[in-house]
Amino acid sequence: MATPPPQVNVSSLTMEQYHRLSDDTMDALLEDLEQLVEDHGDPSFEVEYHSGVLTLKLGESGTYVINKQPPNKQIWLSSPFSGPKRYDYIESDGSWRYSRDNKALDEMLNEELGPTFKVPVQLALSKS
Amino acid sequence: MATPPPQVNVSSLTMEQYHRLSDDTMDALLEDLEQLVEDHGDPSFEVEYHSGVLTLKLGESGTYVINKQPPNKQIWLSSPFSGPKRYDYIESDGSWRYSRDNKALDEMLNEELGPTFKVPVQLALSKS
Repeated sequence: MATPPPQVNVSSLTMEQYHRLSDDTMDALLEDLEQLVEDHGDPSFEVEYHSGVLTLKLGESGTYVINKQPPNKQIWLSSPFSGPKRYDYIESDGSWRYSRDNKALDEMLNEELGPTFKVPVQLALSKS
Repeated sequence: MATPPPQVNVSSLTMEQYHRLSDDTMDALLEDLEQLVEDHGDPSFEVEYHSGVLTLKLGESGTYVINKQPPNKQIWLSSPFSGPKRYDYIESDGSWRYSRDNKALDEMLNEELGPTFKVPVQLALSKS
């Protein structure tokens, strides 16, 4: 059984727009996750961001990796709970959305991180 | 269409064995990839390793992310060419292998990186 190839990129963003929008999102994510870890995280939790790759370590629960993937104009995420996902920018609502489940990046993280942090999590990355 | 859940972990490694084996593999990968980038990489190529997450940036070709995922006792990889994969340790030959295509981590990287670096790539992580 072969691995399915990466999704076809249908984004109409220019590369410059992609970098600006994805950098904004990664910066906002970093800030929100740092706050969340500081306020409600276990001492073993950790957030790091190095050159386009954000790591959220949740101790024994595992590690999220979120990274820019410029050739596809996507943001890729790997969740220790639900596996890998690829987010495209949706211009109509300013969200990054995974076409297979139609969920936005922040919606998915809110759902998965709430139980781990034992508080309602409300990241809000989308513009509308 | 929902994302398939993470593969069931069938590893019989202890957590200590997992960390030792995966750390050895990540260290060997880092060393080999640094050498490859130094010898045959484009100036825009870059390898980084921060706390369990290895990033191989290949300029316009995209970014590989390879990370330890301790709860599953796996190594997860995200390829800009072929997407996400998850490697289990196979005790019989000391390899990290993806059950869906039965390929070892080093075999897969050799195949994908050769065309990018325009030289035969021969990482050799397995012990046999």
